[in-house]
Amino acid sequence: MPEIIFKKRQSVKQVEEATDFAPKFDANGLIPVVTTDFITGEVLMQGYMNEEALKQTIAIGEAVYYSRSRQKLWHKGKTSGFVQKVTEIRIDDDQDAVWLTVDIGDGASCHVGYRSCFYRSIPLGKIENGRNVEMKFEEKEKKFDPEKIYKGQPNPTKI
Amino acid sequence: MPEIIFKKRQSVKQVEEATDFAPKFDANGLIPVVTTDFITGEVLMQGYMNEEALKQTIAIGEAVYYSRSRQKLWHKGKTSGFVQKVTEIRIDDDQDAVWLTVDIGDGASCHVGYRSCFYRSIPLGKIENGRNVEMKFEEKEKKFDPEKIYKGQPNPTKI
Repeated sequence: MPEIIFKKRQSVKQVEEATDFAPKFDANGLIPVVTTDFITGEVLMQGYMNEEALKQTIAIGEAVYYSRSRQKLWHKGKTSGFVQKVTEIRIDDDQDAVWLTVDIGDGASCHVGYRSCFYRSIPLGKIENGRNVEMKFEEKEKKFDPEKIYKGQPNPTKI
Repeated sequence: MPEIIFKKRQSVKQVEEATDFAPKFDANGLIPVVTTDFITGEVLMQGYMNEEALKQTIAIGEAVYYSRSRQKLWHKGKTSGFVQKVTEIRIDDDQDAVWLTVDIGDGASCHVGYRSCFYRSIPLGKIENGRNVEMKFEEKEKKFDPEKIYKGQPNPTKI
């Protein structure tokens, strides 16, 4: 693990108003991460990091997550080739959420093949009794064929 | 609770490739939510919704979260006045994360007083032994004074 030292959390003032980096990991040792595209601003994915993943991301400047389904560090793009070059890291007020801004070029972030994992929208509006929600595809074309790229690997999506 | 029906999760193909809205809530009944500004694209906050919060958000078109610290539904802006008008809702590939795009006008999203909760950045780069991380303020001025707006209320940040 890279030798980087997180500060101990001591007070609300320190956590919110100071420059001490004192991230808070949950009961499973994880912190949620939202990743956006450095040009378009679109949200590409939502993931998690443990302490080591966060330190490696800071050290190498490429996104390293913790995969909950595989239960190990996940240097994003090592299989697909779509590495996320980090352009900025931010932390929120109480330091329990991370925002990564990344450069993925003309690549993709989603294991299904789309550029963003958030390729479907939910219609807003007044709900009538018994209404089912029908989503809309906001991305029409996949950037790659997951059956070729992830050949033989299990799909991480859990029912 | 508004009468809106989520689909039962039945297969990976249904969850990833179809228009069925079948969100997955975690062991605590929550789904993580990232909220971005509809004009600037900046990440304003990261929060959580339970089933009812998600249904209300779809129904009324304003962000309703679930507050983990207060353990109840949280119609954002009811105290501060900074309501989040939802312009789009998206869901990710395996439907266990929500992306809200919102209009907050010239308001703020952060209880500390800044526009975005992510007002500090972490420097990237090679880590030297024993290096502490010193963060940088990316927002210089608060949009409001939290001591006036939230007078007498406990700060939600936990150490």
